[in-house]
Amino acid sequence: MSDVFDLTCELIRRRSVTPDDAGCQATIADRLMRAGFTVRHLRHGEVDNLWATHGDGGPTLAFLGHTDVVPTGPMDAWRFDPFDPTVVDGVLYGRGAADMKGSVAAMVVALEAFVAAHPDHAGRVGLLLTSDEEGPTNLDGVRRVAEQFRTEGERIDWCVVGEPSSKARLGDLIRVGRRGSLSGTLSVRGVQGHVAYPEKAKNPIHAFAPALAELAAERWDEGNADFPPTSFQVSNLNAGTGATNVIPGTLTALFNFRYSTVSTADQLKARTAAILDRHGLDYALEWNLSGEPFLTPPGGRLREVVVDVCRELAGVVPEQSTGGGTSDGRFIAPLGAEVVELGPVNATIHQVDECVAVADLQRLPALYEAICVRLLVDAAHG
Amino acid sequence: MSDVFDLTCELIRRRSVTPDDAGCQATIADRLMRAGFTVRHLRHGEVDNLWATHGDGGPTLAFLGHTDVVPTGPMDAWRFDPFDPTVVDGVLYGRGAADMKGSVAAMVVALEAFVAAHPDHAGRVGLLLTSDEEGPTNLDGVRRVAEQFRTEGERIDWCVVGEPSSKARLGDLIRVGRRGSLSGTLSVRGVQGHVAYPEKAKNPIHAFAPALAELAAERWDEGNADFPPTSFQVSNLNAGTGATNVIPGTLTALFNFRYSTVSTADQLKARTAAILDRHGLDYALEWNLSGEPFLTPPGGRLREVVVDVCRELAGVVPEQSTGGGTSDGRFIAPLGAEVVELGPVNATIHQVDECVAVADLQRLPALYEAICVRLLVDAAHG
Ligand SMILES: [Zn+2]
Ligand SMILES: [Zn+2]
Repeated sequence: MSDVFDLTCELIRRRSVTPDDAGCQATIADRLMRAGFTVRHLRHGEVDNLWATHGDGGPTLAFLGHTDVVPTGPMDAWRFDPFDPTVVDGVLYGRGAADMKGSVAAMVVALEAFVAAHPDHAGRVGLLLTSDEEGPTNLDGVRRVAEQFRTEGERIDWCVVGEPSSKARLGDLIRVGRRGSLSGTLSVRGVQGHVAYPEKAKNPIHAFAPALAELAAERWDEGNADFPPTSFQVSNLNAGTGATNVIPGTLTALFNFRYSTVSTADQLKARTAAILDRHGLDYALEWNLSGEPFLTPPGGRLREVVVDVCRELAGVVPEQSTGGGTSDGRFIAPLGAEVVELGPVNATIHQVDECVAVADLQRLPALYEAICVRLLVDAAHG
Repeated sequence: MSDVFDLTCELIRRRSVTPDDAGCQATIADRLMRAGFTVRHLRHGEVDNLWATHGDGGPTLAFLGHTDVVPTGPMDAWRFDPFDPTVVDGVLYGRGAADMKGSVAAMVVALEAFVAAHPDHAGRVGLLLTSDEEGPTNLDGVRRVAEQFRTEGERIDWCVVGEPSSKARLGDLIRVGRRGSLSGTLSVRGVQGHVAYPEKAKNPIHAFAPALAELAAERWDEGNADFPPTSFQVSNLNAGTGATNVIPGTLTALFNFRYSTVSTADQLKARTAAILDRHGLDYALEWNLSGEPFLTPPGGRLREVVVDVCRELAGVVPEQSTGGGTSDGRFIAPLGAEVVELGPVNATIHQVDECVAVADLQRLPALYEAICVRLLVDAAHG
């Protein structure tokens, strides 16, 4: 059908369930080396990472993607074998079609075309891939590579992440930052007893209830022009032995903040503790900060270019959002890079029958290539 | 050692883990028949029940007990084999020693002595035993027998329950009623989603929190002279998929009211629903009424007699309480009976190393016999 289509299908056929790369990066490295790229394999632990660059000196534009996919879930629930790419009515089905083997293939094709057309482009263009984005911890993926880059003095100025950002049509939404993610594990201690003798027990459910109501009702901040207000969600709440006549001795709550740049993790921790303390709870609380928020400001060159490219090549003025989950962009932003995420429609990601419109897939390389041209050719000549 | 001691040991040796009677009732029936009692075996489903009476006409005094015991729990944790009665330092160890094979043995010995001494006593004296008191549902025990009695027009005026009522020494507390027990199973429905997209989800934990706080803080009533205030306890509270990034779709809460005669079950149901409704919750709520409250009023003859017997024969003025769990007395009270519970110290019941003081066990038949004498001999002559 086309180069990007064929490469996407080839990647889908590789069963690269996180954190297994299943040979995807070797295929890509091979192509990019033939196109003149310098390739480094940055293996950390069990995780394959790839860093391919072309050019040197001047500003660096990096494309960022992942070759791993989430598990398929029940295979029976799929219309087609998730590792056997299948087109029906102009839609390509397969695990990773949208998240994000389609984007990765488009980046490869775009980079090949770009360096062929502009062998002497300004600055440097690169592709950074990991096979540990979808796993639970991502310790050995871009997090580790970014540490290495920092140590080595490797600089990235602009980073385009291929995460499926679009809502209904290609390019209708780009991400220009991400909220921070801060998780807590709370244990509230009471005294176990029999429901018939409540005076001898202390029910941690009852003790926690008013604090929980207060936490759920709290306005943590009002957000700002770039971020929605910080949100607090309890994901798991458990207490009780299963027996209906026993007052439990402990309650456990897992919760998560998705927070804007208006609040800091330390402020949120302190305010949470203050609410728990005010209710006189006997508790233990453990925190896990999985990502600080980052923002590519409106005046930045990358953000301007990506918006222009979407408008001119995809025919849509993109919403510029900081919503959604976290992405590996959070590890690149602290290196001083402007980070923007642009990828296909995300409606089916992580689900059965994950798919991408073939037309969107075919158009994506042109968008990525145009970003290269505007940052590393037009700007240099302008 | 003594008749009551030997019979208690014989019953402990029978492994009558609920609802298995393991031959306890046959042993007792045999003895009471030889003492001149009329015996009926009232088997319902898999459950043995025994109703033995002596005398006819006039008021009926019934003793009520159970031959089943709770499981032993980990056998290794016991100092002695729970089914091999063992005396150390004047204390008899064994499953059921306190709850309530000691009481049952004392009742049998007391009844034998009473009818031997007063073969022409007024009214009727009886012993009602079940092997399904400790089980989870008690459907075929005293609940079913009471239905049968109601159908047959069988009348009980006074009922002495052998549940271990005493706190620190024999007779220091008697139960003159029981609170009602009303349980609820609540499901609060939300909309499942991803913690990064709270606007697309509806977190049932957050929705329920203020209602839970209100339910936990509610004063349901102030109790009265005979009952402590109604108490509400959530025994189990669960929401969450285990995943920390998923907002759950449902929350489940199991709760229980122990309620005084100031409130009715219908009032508590209505007030609970009103609180849930006021918070706009989408919920399903199922109720289970396991026992209405009952009270033997202070002016009643039985209560007076039992207090006198404790004072005169056990040397202690008993606290007259309606606290604690439920008992099978709740099924007999609605037949129009005055119900009082008197039994040994309950400190070890349902635990490993369950035990009873041998001295208390030896004194218990005299207390039960004195109750018979005062109600069915002295009163008739007085
Ligand atoms: Zn992804
Ligand atoms: Zn009992």
